Amino acid sequence: MQAKCIFKINLLTYKITIVGSSNNPNSAGYNFTASLLTYGFKGKIYPVTPRYSEILGLKSYPNVKEIPGSVDYVISAVSAPLVPAMMEDCSHKGVKLIHLFTARFSETGRPEAAKLEQEVLRLAKSYGIRLIGPNCMGLFSPRRGISFSDAMPEEKFGPIGLISQSGQAVEEIVRSSALMGLYYSKAISYGNALDFNECDFLDYLAQDQETKVILMYVEGLRDGRRFLNSLRAATAQKPVVILKGGRSQSGARAVASHTASLAGSTDLLEVVLAQAGAVSAESMEEFIDLAVTFHYLPSLRGRGVGVIGGAGGASVLAADQCESAGLEVVPIPPEMREELKNRGISIWDWIGNPVDHSIREDTNFNHGTIVEMMARNEKFHLLIIMFNEPHHERQKNMTADNYLEEYRFEDYKPKPVMAVVPDRSLGLDHYADWNWKIIYEIRSKLLAGGIPYYPSIGRAARAARKVADFYQRDSR
Amino acid sequence: MQAKCIFKINLLTYKITIVGSSNNPNSAGYNFTASLLTYGFKGKIYPVTPRYSEILGLKSYPNVKEIPGSVDYVISAVSAPLVPAMMEDCSHKGVKLIHLFTARFSETGRPEAAKLEQEVLRLAKSYGIRLIGPNCMGLFSPRRGISFSDAMPEEKFGPIGLISQSGQAVEEIVRSSALMGLYYSKAISYGNALDFNECDFLDYLAQDQETKVILMYVEGLRDGRRFLNSLRAATAQKPVVILKGGRSQSGARAVASHTASLAGSTDLLEVVLAQAGAVSAESMEEFIDLAVTFHYLPSLRGRGVGVIGGAGGASVLAADQCESAGLEVVPIPPEMREELKNRGISIWDWIGNPVDHSIREDTNFNHGTIVEMMARNEKFHLLIIMFNEPHHERQKNMTADNYLEEYRFEDYKPKPVMAVVPDRSLGLDHYADWNWKIIYEIRSKLLAGGIPYYPSIGRAARAARKVADFYQRDSR
Repeated sequence: MQAKCIFKINLLTYKITIVGSSNNPNSAGYNFTASLLTYGFKGKIYPVTPRYSEILGLKSYPNVKEIPGSVDYVISAVSAPLVPAMMEDCSHKGVKLIHLFTARFSETGRPEAAKLEQEVLRLAKSYGIRLIGPNCMGLFSPRRGISFSDAMPEEKFGPIGLISQSGQAVEEIVRSSALMGLYYSKAISYGNALDFNECDFLDYLAQDQETKVILMYVEGLRDGRRFLNSLRAATAQKPVVILKGGRSQSGARAVASHTASLAGSTDLLEVVLAQAGAVSAESMEEFIDLAVTFHYLPSLRGRGVGVIGGAGGASVLAADQCESAGLEVVPIPPEMREELKNRGISIWDWIGNPVDHSIREDTNFNHGTIVEMMARNEKFHLLIIMFNEPHHERQKNMTADNYLEEYRFEDYKPKPVMAVVPDRSLGLDHYADWNWKIIYEIRSKLLAGGIPYYPSIGRAARAARKVADFYQRDSR
Repeated sequence: MQAKCIFKINLLTYKITIVGSSNNPNSAGYNFTASLLTYGFKGKIYPVTPRYSEILGLKSYPNVKEIPGSVDYVISAVSAPLVPAMMEDCSHKGVKLIHLFTARFSETGRPEAAKLEQEVLRLAKSYGIRLIGPNCMGLFSPRRGISFSDAMPEEKFGPIGLISQSGQAVEEIVRSSALMGLYYSKAISYGNALDFNECDFLDYLAQDQETKVILMYVEGLRDGRRFLNSLRAATAQKPVVILKGGRSQSGARAVASHTASLAGSTDLLEVVLAQAGAVSAESMEEFIDLAVTFHYLPSLRGRGVGVIGGAGGASVLAADQCESAGLEVVPIPPEMREELKNRGISIWDWIGNPVDHSIREDTNFNHGTIVEMMARNEKFHLLIIMFNEPHHERQKNMTADNYLEEYRFEDYKPKPVMAVVPDRSLGLDHYADWNWKIIYEIRSKLLAGGIPYYPSIGRAARAARKVADFYQRDSR
């Protein structure tokens, strides 16, 4: 079952017109124009404004009708009252799609603004123009050099697709994902969803060959029944992670003034998302954790976990966090116990899972020994390795490699491995301390080896559980 | 109701004897001796070992009996089979308290080791010696210069007291608290709790004038009924935050091999803790968040929250997280709405709580304006201010002061204020980026101004809710 996909970026992006462009660096019109230039958009860019004849070295036009030839994609940064006239101009130039960055419509809660929004929709239908927005940042397409911000990672293209009612969320998600080595195929910020809505964009990314994982930040659904069908079709193709904004009363109030959406009943929505096979995130942190996990661990297909690298209380709490997340902290299997004994390891009967590293009486035994055994054993579907920041004087001469050398990550493949690397909110006095520098380096080396890391065992475990559930559903 | 307090540190710490001391820097005996020296213990230190005549410049004795004069406090780092003979030596010198770092007792799960542990207890009773441990790191007392580790913050003394079955947890908690400007009066790691147990240490810190907030990491209770009484008495004096290790099946298994404790029924324990007025933490992160919150915000006495500084989706999600944590995201009260209107702010009817800063049409209006109004309004018990890491080119010349100058933190007092400052798990390529340096500086300046920060709105909100509940219970 595949929904018909109406929205497509690639048809529309050889020429981009920015109405309301400007030479004022603090304006949105300037920002859209500058971002296309610096992000390396390969097509033609037409700034439109009556105020300047040239913007950022580009010839500027007083209105859309003056642009030579046809115009296909328009970004509108004019103020709301100017939109109808701008649309009429567009109707004479064969425009197919307008992205309305323009805001101050129904989200203001003012009746006259809501009325204007409806008029815009009516005009779009009569002119045969489709709309993204209003009140949104529009398209981000690294491969095509389309960006709406100067804060996006440069020239990085990847397999994650993002659909978001909030433009702020797109920036935050893309920026923080990049720090984890995660890059985007396309991202779409769609605001009030007056015309094209979450279903259109979902259908598009579901069929998009460049997109392997879909992330959605939604505040309200414009068409619940169609969404369920689109979602079912999408999750049959690839993972879809959804972060729902406006789950609470005050969140729903904030949604109304943000994208004029009706947040709707959250409990019902959760049931619907689960039925459709989507993965629901409870916070922005979890949303990114899930993206990271789907990206790095597509082979995660069960809940049995082996935990290595804690000590004392940290091992106990790691077990609690894993089990509370719904993972199974597998007791050391008899055949492994036997092997430990046969290898002459004196604490063979004491070692448990989590593996507590605080007693190392045996020189023939280190973390690597037991990780390797767990990697071979089919009862473990996932290994979580916990690192601590070094903190003793004697550790000062160590390097990140010293901390990693116990492990042979290549040998564990294809067993999924997560790392837990502590995060502390460091201030100016500590961010460059020797021990944190080792942590920064450990993170970089892990990522280079394809091992994702998480700031706490709880976050790793909760992400693992949801990803494992998604794939187990697949195999049933 | 005040429990009789038997355990007291100050009586016992003028002379410390380390049995099993050593010149081998990788040994525990060396570590205990070196830590006392470098941490500046002012009393006498007596290393005991038959192997050396001098350790770290201190005269060493072949056994306890050779030490001149009486001996009061002994740290045992000898191996388990040597403990009974060592205790007999101690019995001839008037020893009152032995800290048994010595491990490999009942936590091994081996019957002969458990039997030896019982023999140690029997001997202690017959000699009139009290025990801390076995299988623990013992005492940390900054004011007295007692430390068991070289990784503790130097010469820093503060109002937080910590009781922990895990020594690893003490190190982790003290280290990460210090990064938040939080320091300790005393910390006690007590391992298997063979003699002195959680009740004794709790009674002690409840009466301790230097301790304003008590943190406990417990894996099992040796005396549940007495604990409930001690806890009630303690929470009548000061906040007690408890992190329970071994809540899960696998966690309980880990507890058995860590401190040989019986983890017991968690659900029942939760009820008991709540009845006794203790605050229960669900993870190590929350444990520290609660310590930070109790320390910086003793005036937090209600659930009404005003949230400032988000934008778009971030504001929506902030509302959701606050409400899901049980805070009340107070709608803008009519009198505030009226004031906004009277001050000629054009979006007076649109502004909500959370305050979305993405539309700032009014030059006479910034975050500071509305924070100041919320601070004055009694419907708001707490203000949460959210910061983002800067990320646009145009922000490169800004300083931390530019980000903070909108706010007049001194003017908001005594209204409690929390900050949310993003944390990302940075690698080697990014930790020194200009925007993160601004974040490090913002954190340092916030802390210097007495404003605690949290890495996510969810963590701030959950900590606030629990702390507010604690104080509301007080006022009923």
